[in-house]
Amino acid sequence: MQLLDGKIISAMIKDELKIEIEKRIAAGQKVPHLAAVLVGNNPASETYVFSKVKSCEEVGMDSTLIRLPDSATEAEVLSTVEKLNNDTAIDGFIVQLPLPAQISEKKVLKAINPDKDVDGFHEVNIGRLALGLPGFVPATPMGIIEMLKRANVETAGKHCVVLGRSHIVGMPISLLLMQNTNPGNCTVTICHSRTAGLETILQSADIIVAAIGKPRFVKANMVKQGAVVIDVGINRIADPSRKSGHRIVGDVDFDEVAPKCSFITPVPGGVGLMTIASLMLNTLKAVQINKY
Amino acid sequence: MQLLDGKIISAMIKDELKIEIEKRIAAGQKVPHLAAVLVGNNPASETYVFSKVKSCEEVGMDSTLIRLPDSATEAEVLSTVEKLNNDTAIDGFIVQLPLPAQISEKKVLKAINPDKDVDGFHEVNIGRLALGLPGFVPATPMGIIEMLKRANVETAGKHCVVLGRSHIVGMPISLLLMQNTNPGNCTVTICHSRTAGLETILQSADIIVAAIGKPRFVKANMVKQGAVVIDVGINRIADPSRKSGHRIVGDVDFDEVAPKCSFITPVPGGVGLMTIASLMLNTLKAVQINKY
Repeated sequence: MQLLDGKIISAMIKDELKIEIEKRIAAGQKVPHLAAVLVGNNPASETYVFSKVKSCEEVGMDSTLIRLPDSATEAEVLSTVEKLNNDTAIDGFIVQLPLPAQISEKKVLKAINPDKDVDGFHEVNIGRLALGLPGFVPATPMGIIEMLKRANVETAGKHCVVLGRSHIVGMPISLLLMQNTNPGNCTVTICHSRTAGLETILQSADIIVAAIGKPRFVKANMVKQGAVVIDVGINRIADPSRKSGHRIVGDVDFDEVAPKCSFITPVPGGVGLMTIASLMLNTLKAVQINKY
Repeated sequence: MQLLDGKIISAMIKDELKIEIEKRIAAGQKVPHLAAVLVGNNPASETYVFSKVKSCEEVGMDSTLIRLPDSATEAEVLSTVEKLNNDTAIDGFIVQLPLPAQISEKKVLKAINPDKDVDGFHEVNIGRLALGLPGFVPATPMGIIEMLKRANVETAGKHCVVLGRSHIVGMPISLLLMQNTNPGNCTVTICHSRTAGLETILQSADIIVAAIGKPRFVKANMVKQGAVVIDVGINRIADPSRKSGHRIVGDVDFDEVAPKCSFITPVPGGVGLMTIASLMLNTLKAVQINKY
């Protein structure tokens, strides 16, 4: 069993980015600049956004955090988006989700210039992804692809079972893995809450991508010997032995499943760490596309 | 075995469209107007475009055929697209593919206003489809969905195996059938040229969508008793017994497979006839969206 270690792989990516950005500076090129819009005070959102901003600094990118109050109107958020669309100092930006109830996420996401949409959630970027055209790939599926690529995991002709059909993980990773690319060329089965006979389907998988948000759902008896298991779940469960009273587990029962795997991602320390690295990669891509 | 008869279903749709358009006329609303751009003299393309124009007339829609010579430049085609984008008389239009080699299909498709893109090939419409947002669905997958809906085929929780990952059939029908809609909620497996163990996968399918362009590829031994089989193939094979010297067959060996099916589409007379009906439905939708 080989661990697909998000710490190691994301650190490698950050090191590469650092060098790339130093090169840009030496060549007199623009330093990539990421902006993040945070509306309200959701503690989880704050944590995510702060770590994105911190990661920018680590690799030498510029970053701007724009905070709006929880009471912000849709018009205010849309006007912030419009300013960022037109601000040539900003190469890419994200609007941290979820947004307060009075603001339509759909409208806000649609208002972002697709060429600055480093989260890759805009319909144009999802369309480009589906068609295999250049664009921004959402961070989590992009992180999974990077992990598979860097660990030289063979994917062509393999049966990949994706658990979950969400717009930010299950659907896009299915599209990426079915395409005639490397990693890719998988036979992909997309499973979800309405799937019948899930156990049998999982047992036939060479690669499992679990993204359903159910703590330790995937058990050893569902996994084929030698399978590659990618665990996207980040679930908080009670743990009285910890000072915090909880701990984070994935959608896969790691202790049970790991011994059967050829490769497996841990939680924490797996795919989660790749998402920020992917956002940084997308920000570098943005400065290259937009050529300000 | 029940035949999913494209002749009957497409005739029903055309009748409904006729009534809808008469209602629009009675209410003083705009008559939907489809334009088709045909570059060159490819005989198959001519046949397709002519039948699209003829179908418009049948249902009472307006149509315009714009022909450009085989020698047309990319700039000429792009300028035609731009005119149609801005022409408020035209609700939707298509550029018949393939285009002559000197013209980039990607560039031309991208230039079409997504809200007039009744073929649904634009990256924005594919993105909307993937995200379950309102938009234009390409004609063939849309025709398949219409057939399943009108025949009340149960799809939820069923295992659907899609043969082929093309941008105009395999990929979009996979996305449509996996979504939380009706028809939809299938567990979808997407197979293609790199798939290993295809026979076994097909044998587990409750629904098969065959779109690989291989004459009579799907045989009885690959199909489960009671399966629903949708045959998208349109393959010309030699047939000395015919005056023309050829005939059209699907990707499914109909004679062998049909007795095992609960539902099956014939070729010809199946999905093929649904594509034009779908284009008409999209054109009606276009006039409703654009509200000229």
